[in-house]
Amino acid sequence: MTDPAATVAELMQRIGAAAVAAQPALARATRATKDRALLAAAAALRASQTSLVDANAKDLEVGRAKGLSGAMMDRLKLDPARIESMAKGLEDIAALEDPIGTVIAEWTRPNGLRIARVRVPLGVIGIIYESRPNVTADAGALCLKSGNAVILRGGSESLHSSTAIHACLVAGLRAAGLPEAAIQLVPTTDRAAVGYMLAQMTDYIDVLVPRGGKTLVKRVQDEARVPVIGHLEGNCHVYVDRAADLDMAVRIVLDAKLRRTGICGSAETLLVDGAIVDTHLPTLVQALLSRGCEVRGDASTRAIDARVRPATEEDWYTEYLDAIIAVRVVDGVGAAIEHIARYGSAHTESIVTQDAEAARRFLDEVDSAIVLHNASTQFADGGEFGMGAEIGISTDRFHARGPVGVEQLTSYKYVVRGSGQIRA
Amino acid sequence: MTDPAATVAELMQRIGAAAVAAQPALARATRATKDRALLAAAAALRASQTSLVDANAKDLEVGRAKGLSGAMMDRLKLDPARIESMAKGLEDIAALEDPIGTVIAEWTRPNGLRIARVRVPLGVIGIIYESRPNVTADAGALCLKSGNAVILRGGSESLHSSTAIHACLVAGLRAAGLPEAAIQLVPTTDRAAVGYMLAQMTDYIDVLVPRGGKTLVKRVQDEARVPVIGHLEGNCHVYVDRAADLDMAVRIVLDAKLRRTGICGSAETLLVDGAIVDTHLPTLVQALLSRGCEVRGDASTRAIDARVRPATEEDWYTEYLDAIIAVRVVDGVGAAIEHIARYGSAHTESIVTQDAEAARRFLDEVDSAIVLHNASTQFADGGEFGMGAEIGISTDRFHARGPVGVEQLTSYKYVVRGSGQIRA
Repeated sequence: MTDPAATVAELMQRIGAAAVAAQPALARATRATKDRALLAAAAALRASQTSLVDANAKDLEVGRAKGLSGAMMDRLKLDPARIESMAKGLEDIAALEDPIGTVIAEWTRPNGLRIARVRVPLGVIGIIYESRPNVTADAGALCLKSGNAVILRGGSESLHSSTAIHACLVAGLRAAGLPEAAIQLVPTTDRAAVGYMLAQMTDYIDVLVPRGGKTLVKRVQDEARVPVIGHLEGNCHVYVDRAADLDMAVRIVLDAKLRRTGICGSAETLLVDGAIVDTHLPTLVQALLSRGCEVRGDASTRAIDARVRPATEEDWYTEYLDAIIAVRVVDGVGAAIEHIARYGSAHTESIVTQDAEAARRFLDEVDSAIVLHNASTQFADGGEFGMGAEIGISTDRFHARGPVGVEQLTSYKYVVRGSGQIRA
Repeated sequence: MTDPAATVAELMQRIGAAAVAAQPALARATRATKDRALLAAAAALRASQTSLVDANAKDLEVGRAKGLSGAMMDRLKLDPARIESMAKGLEDIAALEDPIGTVIAEWTRPNGLRIARVRVPLGVIGIIYESRPNVTADAGALCLKSGNAVILRGGSESLHSSTAIHACLVAGLRAAGLPEAAIQLVPTTDRAAVGYMLAQMTDYIDVLVPRGGKTLVKRVQDEARVPVIGHLEGNCHVYVDRAADLDMAVRIVLDAKLRRTGICGSAETLLVDGAIVDTHLPTLVQALLSRGCEVRGDASTRAIDARVRPATEEDWYTEYLDAIIAVRVVDGVGAAIEHIARYGSAHTESIVTQDAEAARRFLDEVDSAIVLHNASTQFADGGEFGMGAEIGISTDRFHARGPVGVEQLTSYKYVVRGSGQIRA
């Protein structure tokens, strides 16, 4: 008689202990060694194209049987182009500077002590994500580059694909002489494993990163007994001020809403200054409607076109992740800031204006991870920020805010060099 | 019939909501305004000397009746010198640079977007501490300077003293035109208030800082539902290497252990290289014994003097915070690093050596918040690091590691300036 809970506990304990044991070697690995592992893993992905597609076919079959949505099936799917893109992703991460060992700051005290603040890994990172096989490669590679051991727990529908991808990452580690337990994949779809990672592995896991939908992130933030880098929703706003250039406003609003609707940096609410209801609002609304975007608006917005549906209080809170936008007229930049403070998720907001003072006030007073002036909210992305690949956009204020790249996956220590100093 | 739990809940909800409401004004306050509040609070402390001493007398009476230890009674006590020192502490914090609004990094992207990473407050900080009235002033002032609203929950024995000190801080806020709810003191000794702060105030408190003994910090880390900046024990080590200068080693070991034994940066274990058992160990042990330090040692150490008591496995784990030291002979720097990894608390460790390669290895491989070469562990202090006043030494790896001063009580946001850029 095996107790399945005990089995998961034993499995997870073994994985945790192996990660902790592997971590010091990773922390000390040179950039060359880590990059060799990444490049060898990229080569292994390319060489394994057939077996990856085969493994993925099993997942797709299970997904179809489970009745996954079209969007979920699409995210689950691997094809040669996506495998190439994963391999290229690993090479891009290899090309990034090594954050570990970087001296962040250095100063000398009057007593001659030389103090340096030096970047070190966080330790062991647990990543819990949904059924997107490519996250296995991305997240594993980002943790490796930043000197962290990682325990990956992907969605159950992607287990065959993730296992095959993980094998390529392990081949890379082996080729570079790094411990194989540097990147581990939880080899079970038992949901008890997630609960165990959240609450029972405080001795093994230093930080948890949930990557996925609202429900997953919320569960992790509620149940986790270790620090979390959270990625909550992006209820992002564009505010078009009275001093906005109309052409620029149209261009930015269309891009912010419609370039890609499913990403956290897409705009969900458009706020328009009451002073330009006659001059700007009609053009903005017609531009959105003519691109097939559903518009839900307040009374002023509905007056423009019969296709505009009424916005409810709920709409101001909603992250549609779809071609739908809520539109509201507000009384100037102060009212826009108040609306964002009340309904927003502190992710990314943009003001369109030629008025430097309105821009200054918006950038100062809007308390979001990213605030933009005359640019699209879709720039909320580590790559667009020049930080390289990212694991997501943190909506936390603690430790890491905004794009989470290799640098945000690190801690630091103080190295103090003396010549016999004592305090007495 | 009043339900006491409901009463505490209502009280804490009211305090939480007031802190959140006060926070934006604080975040926007200029350095001049914040410093005016700090200086006015310092003046109020000096002017209230008599009433502070009177309030403290009530606490001391309760403490005596409760049978508090001598050390606890000493920490509880306020006298004119300590009041002056608190006032001076506020002035020192006023003299620090304002971290808020500082541009941490700034760069321009190829598309012309200018990206700045700007320091902002964390938000609302909850500080839970033991019966040390001076923490009320220090912690309140550090949070104010860093633009955070703060909810202070001190030990129940110090409530009268803390209430009187808090009144001086509020007088300072009032003088500067800042909201009084910027610094709030939980006005009850009901222990339910602590539980409430830990688990029920996630909508109000952004970060919790426990400041006090191991039991308190452990409870906060176990029960908190918001991020914590933890300050666990300092089981600090000095390793005297075969290439150590003997005079320097003696000076550093005596200072690290005995300058002040009750602080987290005091050394608890001395590791001595096996190669210098004959040349260095006897002098080190005699120096400690002759200063009245109890020595608990392994067999080699016991062979030196009959007063050396046997060290047990437990001793290597122990933070004595007293004039007691554990001494062990190890086989070189590698064995010292292993001992520290196994038994240490990753706080502060020092190597004494003239060998640059041994020092490099120790500084690289010891995974502690602070690692020193040829200097006393008692330098583990924000003031000694030149960071000004501190709230403690973080033993976490997440967000803040080592001394926690005003800068560590901040987050950041990204301010992006464009000229109409879109991503498509």
